[in-house]
Amino acid sequence: MVLMTNSPAPSLNRLSVPELLEHSRALCTPLLREAIGRLATPLDSVASYHFGWTDRDGRPVEEYGGKAVRPALALLSAQAVNASPSTGATGGAAVELIHNFSLLHDDFMDGDETRRHRATSWKVFGPAQAILVGDALFTLATEVLLESPHHSDIETADAARAVHQVTSATRKLIDGQAQDISFEHRDRVSVEECREMEGNKTGALLACASSIGAILAGADDDTADSLDRFGHHLGLAFQAVDDLLGIWGTTEITGKPHWGDLRQRKKSLPVSAALAEGGQASRRLAELLATAEGRGEEDESKLAERAALIEKAGGRAWTQDEAGRQYKTALAALDEVAMPDSVREQFTELAQFIVHRKN
Amino acid sequence: MVLMTNSPAPSLNRLSVPELLEHSRALCTPLLREAIGRLATPLDSVASYHFGWTDRDGRPVEEYGGKAVRPALALLSAQAVNASPSTGATGGAAVELIHNFSLLHDDFMDGDETRRHRATSWKVFGPAQAILVGDALFTLATEVLLESPHHSDIETADAARAVHQVTSATRKLIDGQAQDISFEHRDRVSVEECREMEGNKTGALLACASSIGAILAGADDDTADSLDRFGHHLGLAFQAVDDLLGIWGTTEITGKPHWGDLRQRKKSLPVSAALAEGGQASRRLAELLATAEGRGEEDESKLAERAALIEKAGGRAWTQDEAGRQYKTALAALDEVAMPDSVREQFTELAQFIVHRKN
Repeated sequence: MVLMTNSPAPSLNRLSVPELLEHSRALCTPLLREAIGRLATPLDSVASYHFGWTDRDGRPVEEYGGKAVRPALALLSAQAVNASPSTGATGGAAVELIHNFSLLHDDFMDGDETRRHRATSWKVFGPAQAILVGDALFTLATEVLLESPHHSDIETADAARAVHQVTSATRKLIDGQAQDISFEHRDRVSVEECREMEGNKTGALLACASSIGAILAGADDDTADSLDRFGHHLGLAFQAVDDLLGIWGTTEITGKPHWGDLRQRKKSLPVSAALAEGGQASRRLAELLATAEGRGEEDESKLAERAALIEKAGGRAWTQDEAGRQYKTALAALDEVAMPDSVREQFTELAQFIVHRKN
Repeated sequence: MVLMTNSPAPSLNRLSVPELLEHSRALCTPLLREAIGRLATPLDSVASYHFGWTDRDGRPVEEYGGKAVRPALALLSAQAVNASPSTGATGGAAVELIHNFSLLHDDFMDGDETRRHRATSWKVFGPAQAILVGDALFTLATEVLLESPHHSDIETADAARAVHQVTSATRKLIDGQAQDISFEHRDRVSVEECREMEGNKTGALLACASSIGAILAGADDDTADSLDRFGHHLGLAFQAVDDLLGIWGTTEITGKPHWGDLRQRKKSLPVSAALAEGGQASRRLAELLATAEGRGEEDESKLAERAALIEKAGGRAWTQDEAGRQYKTALAALDEVAMPDSVREQFTELAQFIVHRKN
């Protein structure tokens, strides 16, 4: 299988972003399927449902497993240091396993009932299975990395470095989820607190994805750090867009409930920025949040009113600007790394895609 | 701090088993506290409560954190290959973190409300916090191992080997928990199925504990394999005793509910063996299980009747014998490894303690 050998890297620079994402998914999916295949029944079926490979009865379905942004970043990060696609795919598979571990656990904790236009795994198979499968994906991420030296030119020390990096990112991700949950119980969260939470919850794993291919290829610390910072700021841009979609996104496109973040009392960036503004709409919003009903108990009109106040107080515009600022900071970090022009262009196009996406 | 340097290993051979356990806990606890200290608030408080260091309000309490069997095994496994106590303690801390990760998740999944004479973490802090802290302990186990080369004489390749070993054990542990849950929904489970489940759920991590110190010290594969097999069979003996205590243990001593395993419809060894016997009591037991009420809904008299039938059908005696058989097989594996007599004696005494314990 040519993808898994360390043949010279084919150029990715003629691929459009959708083609790059498709290509990255195609490279990582066999690794993911092999890993999931190691799980005992029924954990393998739950994982397969979660990844969008099968329906709840185990019948194969047309695959719909998310955007594959993380695998694409991992592939490019290997490409940036002239490493093989298989090195990038190994890192991409590990990051994707961690990402899905966190989705499985977070969906249950957050009480989210739909993801990617389907019922979430804990709704279909129960909390115990969703938690166990999440745990199992976490173990598989480490296994994929540590076993890679046996069948590729990845060095053991670099595999260990990558495991450490993935593990640290995972711990940040857990910290971020803890902060996110605690914020739901507060009336007010500062923009800085929100940004820190989002840096943990989203920035850390995108930072990891953006550097893991280079790390597996033995890149020096400076290169890894710059790619990491690129990914961190790209993650903050990604999350700012996510926060906008979480309030004003269209359910048909995002697959998530309308005004979902408001319904869940999430203190996302638009809310924090609107509360910080201090004008009339901002103060009215603060009053509403202080007297709001419990999670998920409010009717549409109240949510609509709150969304309008957030927009009036400038929370929507501020968050749009924030996405642009983080995007620019990300590209500046990328400039610190010497890499083929074609790879830099792909990184940049992917970053633009992330900032301008609609779902 | 003398414990963390690689000073010559003091002899453990004059320590009684309780002293060995206390000594092992004393060596591992500082590493565990340092690791827990890395967690963001409130995850650190939840972890501290779970480990028995603080009460639910964060006030320090007299420590009661389990028996420390795993840390003791890790220490001895380092000692077996003449490695330093700090090497053993590193492995012991990692295994203890994994053990507690699984307790946090399993207690929630199993609906267990008490552990070590206290309310379980999910009962006190809610499922989300318990799941997140479990996840975090998992990351910390990997971090403790991968960072050990920076401040000890552990080689990076050996740390990576240990991470791989811990990760594989964790995956088995997850498989075992999935099997255990699925067995609750079945009327009958064969002794072989039960033993496989227990090998995953308990054997794997004791196998890991019994070899991790040697692995971190760079032991050859044969030595590691033999120690691993010793721990696996010791784990099966440990679990056989646990299964006996889960039915006939005294709540005041075990800290677990009376007839807890029967209440939860667990298909533990005594139940499987009694069902396999096929005599009158065995058939009556099968009838009762087929028509039993749901989990936790049965009164004491029904549980007492079931316990009596299990005993009558020989399930209790068979499980006692099984503990003895596994103990012997464990010691035979230990015989394959050349090690100081004093260490072999300690291993043996610890194994005896495990087979004869009352809680």
